[in-house]
Formats: sequence, structure tokens, C-alpha cells
Amino acid sequence: MAGGETLFVHFLGTAGALPTPNRNPSCIMIRRGSDTLLFDCGEGAQQQMMRAKTGFTVNAIFVTHWHADHYLGIFGLVETMAFNGRTEPLTIYGPSGVDGFVEIIHRLTPKIPFVLSAVEVADGDVTLFDGYSVMAFKTYHGIESVGYVLEEDMRPGRFNREGAIALGVPPGPLFGKLQRGESVRIVRDGEEVIISPEQVMGERRRGRKVVYTGDTRPVKNKNDLLEGADLLIHEATFDEEEGSVRAKEVWHSTAREAGMVAAAVHPKILALVHFSSRYTSTANHVQDAKVFFEGEIVAPADLSVIEIPFSDV
Amino acid sequence: MAGGETLFVHFLGTAGALPTPNRNPSCIMIRRGSDTLLFDCGEGAQQQMMRAKTGFTVNAIFVTHWHADHYLGIFGLVETMAFNGRTEPLTIYGPSGVDGFVEIIHRLTPKIPFVLSAVEVADGDVTLFDGYSVMAFKTYHGIESVGYVLEEDMRPGRFNREGAIALGVPPGPLFGKLQRGESVRIVRDGEEVIISPEQVMGERRRGRKVVYTGDTRPVKNKNDLLEGADLLIHEATFDEEEGSVRAKEVWHSTAREAGMVAAAVHPKILALVHFSSRYTSTANHVQDAKVFFEGEIVAPADLSVIEIPFSDV
Repeated sequence: MAGGETLFVHFLGTAGALPTPNRNPSCIMIRRGSDTLLFDCGEGAQQQMMRAKTGFTVNAIFVTHWHADHYLGIFGLVETMAFNGRTEPLTIYGPSGVDGFVEIIHRLTPKIPFVLSAVEVADGDVTLFDGYSVMAFKTYHGIESVGYVLEEDMRPGRFNREGAIALGVPPGPLFGKLQRGESVRIVRDGEEVIISPEQVMGERRRGRKVVYTGDTRPVKNKNDLLEGADLLIHEATFDEEEGSVRAKEVWHSTAREAGMVAAAVHPKILALVHFSSRYTSTANHVQDAKVFFEGEIVAPADLSVIEIPFSDV
Repeated sequence: MAGGETLFVHFLGTAGALPTPNRNPSCIMIRRGSDTLLFDCGEGAQQQMMRAKTGFTVNAIFVTHWHADHYLGIFGLVETMAFNGRTEPLTIYGPSGVDGFVEIIHRLTPKIPFVLSAVEVADGDVTLFDGYSVMAFKTYHGIESVGYVLEEDMRPGRFNREGAIALGVPPGPLFGKLQRGESVRIVRDGEEVIISPEQVMGERRRGRKVVYTGDTRPVKNKNDLLEGADLLIHEATFDEEEGSVRAKEVWHSTAREAGMVAAAVHPKILALVHFSSRYTSTANHVQDAKVFFEGEIVAPADLSVIEIPFSDV
């Protein structure tokens, strides 16, 4: 099958607890086809969305934990959505505390012309969307916190075009039926025969997968869940020089630790984010992660975009 | 008298209700000597302060009214001040509602290591600082709202150096005494004479004055208060083309109306701010204001700075 929905990851905010002149607080936008999801939404996210020209048609916001650098941008974004007359409902997902947070939004913006609701999530909770899902998983940040796995539904296997022709199926509309999972009836050597999809379709294939950790000590005990992502976005607040002790104290990860996680769960790309404002360069972070992980490692600048292709197209 | 405190006005946010890629929501910083005051503090103000390299030693925040584009930046700024271990108290001044607002800050940032307090202000309320004051004045924005006048205390008059010498005062320390308002005793023609400051000092001179309107219909009934400012910062949400009807409906001003106010109260400079995001250029705004006001008119970009000199130095 060619095509399918496009999948883009926009790094709208890659700073740590404090923004810098060039990095906004945490905000990752994932756009799949016409759907737009935000993962964390730090201060200034709406302005980053303007700069990235993504529009504001956000379908849902997933917050990893209730530290201010991960949610303050929601106030202004909701305010702007209200100003623009949005009518589509908006749901904010997050750990315990999400109800109180949405209540504060209503207090600050009394006239919201759309339904704004809160859904609490914890380890293992899955939210279904059309063609993909978002699962929360427990992380380790000293307060209740989760990361998220966005994974597409299984896709049909490859269509064996030559095999179908050999079985006597004429190229044309019947190919489409088989690809959609329907059996077809043909006449072969004067006899009516039924060809089932299993005869011409390969194994169903895994969809694409993006993992975002939020703030946490190196993710652990989740190797099966995190295995083989197209993109693993792992926080890497500190480099190794000063970081390994400090990272434990404040419940963050070093870039080297992010590399260790990647080495265990084999993403195609490891993206490091949430850099402490003490660093003006992320070159050390990338080097540190390379000690353990041999795959591609990036330290995205704000507003950079990664397109996730189908792995086997 | 030479010198005195420097006085800088930083335009950290000049957008209207919605930010744009290049303009942040409302935030004006005034730095006088080592004091720093914020007037409104829209989303992203702390990042603008980083870009402007002003530091975070804010002494007080004055909010004009409780619309989100004028205060959302306070959350992140307080969070960062707490993160940085600030211990100096911080007071937020604003119209009715300021107490509830500060209560929400405490809810979002439970561990603030400094005293954060709220002071409600209304028309005519004056806050005294060392060498200057800030007075609130009623504005017209459909909800409770105020503008602010920052005005320096009166300064001593000019010292008449030649006159002092003619009276027999020898150049040196006695000049300083006279300038500080003390009488001095000299011997002239063998006789003891007392010279009083009044004999050698001119009229006391007005300090510098900056007026910020916040969001409002054209300010009225305040001509005496606003007269002769060094800088009048008046909102100018709309240009004339579409603005005059719309401005009334939504309790804002057109640039032409801002020019009318300036024509009535004679500032040295009129700065237009709070431009609706529909405009990509402010050239029309400046032209519109010129119809009525003949003085200097600017439409500052974000991060631009105006230094206010002493008017008679």
C-alpha cells in the first residue's frame, strides 16, 4: 500500500525548566494527516505554533506532569482559541490534577465557546483516535508523571500483485477488494473460484510509533512498550560533565542515560530535548548519547520538524 | 544638576489580544536607575526579558486589567524567580481581582521563596518609590481597568554658578551645600554673610513622566494628569480604515484617537502599542495619529528601547 497519512513531529519547545532566548519550554506537536496533538504545552506555545504556521486546530493536549514549564502555554492557547470562536471540543489529558487545572482555565477564561474537558490518565491508559492511539506510561520524576506512546493501528500486509495474477485475478477493481480484506469470486478455467485476502496479502504490518518521555529519570521496565519506535524523544536535561549526580537529585536524565534507554529499545531516531538553560550548545549531549546508542541521534532546535516515513514504503 | 538616574522604557510586548510571530502580548518595562517595573506582563514576558538582557530583578508589576493578554506572563516569571531562589518581596498591583489572581499564582507555584503580595489600585491611587511614584488612573475598557503615570519627584532648580560667584561664594564644597538646599556662611569684604539656596537656585523642576494607558477607549477627563509627559504610551489597536466603529464596540482605541489624546496632553513622544494581529504593518497607524498630533510618533517593535533624557539637561 502506498501513502497513508503523513506524520510530522514539530519540536515547538525544547528548553528545560527555564526558557532561553532561542528555546521555548516543552512542547511537542505531532500532526498525523489532519489530526494535531500537543504533548506538553509550555509558555509561548501558541506563538511557536504561529511561527511554525501549524494553525490552532489542536485535537487534544497530553500533559506529562504538572510542572509549570509543561503546561503554562495552555492558558494562552485556550484564550486564543476562544477569541477565534472555536467550537470543536478540546480534551486535556494528564496525570492526577488535570481536573483542578482545567478548573483554573475556566476561572481565567470564563467564556469558552467550546467544551473543554479533562481526562486523567495513568500507566497503561490508552486513548483511541482514528487510525492510531496514545498510551500513557509511568515515568520517574519525583511527582506523578507519565510519558506517551503514539502508535498507529496495524496496517494491512503488502499486496502480492504477481501472486494474484497467477491465481487468475484480473488487474482492476478486484485488487482493491482483496486489499480491503474482502474475498473475491473469479472464473478460472471455466470454474468459479473464491480467492481470499489471505492468499494474496502479506503479514499485517506495524504502524509508525513515536515515544515522548517528558521529564523523568531514564525510563525503565518499559522495554517491550517502547521497543522499535520510529522516534524516541527522551529528555536529556544534563550532559555528563556535571550531570550524573545532579540528574538523580532533581529527577532528570543525562544525555548518556537517554542513550542507554535508546540502546535498549532500538528507536530509528533518538531526539534529545529539555536541555538545561546552562548549556549554550548541545554538542556534548549528542556525544554523550552516542557512547551507548549507535543509531541516529538529534538535538532538535526549536521549530525543527521530523517527518516520519512509513518504514517499508 | 547633571546626571540623575537613567530612565529606559523597554517595549517587551506590543501585540494586541493575540500575539504574532514578531510581537508578544502587552508588556512594558520601565527601568529607572537600578529599579525595574513592569506594566502588564503578557505571555512570554520572561523570555522577552532574556532577549532584552534586562535580568529579572523586577521590583513591582502593575497590571492594567484582568484580560489574559496582559497578565499570563506573570505565572512563568514568578516560577522562574522561584527557581532562581529570589528572596526579595514582589508586589503585584492591579484593579479589583488582584487578590484572586495572586491566589492562583500560589496554587500553581506552591513553593515561592519570597513574599508575593497583591495590592488593589483604583483611580487616583499613588504608589511611592524612591525618587518617583506611580499613579493609577481610570480608563475605559468595558471592565474595571486603569492606566498608570510614572512621575519622578520634583528636582531642585538649576544652580546659578555665576550668580553664586558674584555673591562671593568660592567655587568648591559650598556650591554642593547650596545645591543640596543648605545655606552657607561666607566672609565678604571682611564681613560675615549668609547666602541662602533661594539666592542661587532656580525654580524646582518637574521630574520625568511616562504615561501608559493599557487597553482603553481614548483617555478622557485626565488632561491635567497626563499633561506634558515625556512619553505617552497609548494603545492603538486599530487603524482608521476599519477601526472607528469596531474600536467602540470592543472598548479599544484607533491610532487616530490616540493622536487626538496626544494633541490634548502634549507628550514629547507618542508611542502606539497593542496592534491588532490583523495588521502586518503599522505605517497606517502612525499616519492616522499624525492627523491630530504634530509631535514625535513611534510604533515600537518588540524589544525596542526608548531612553528618556532629562528635559533640560
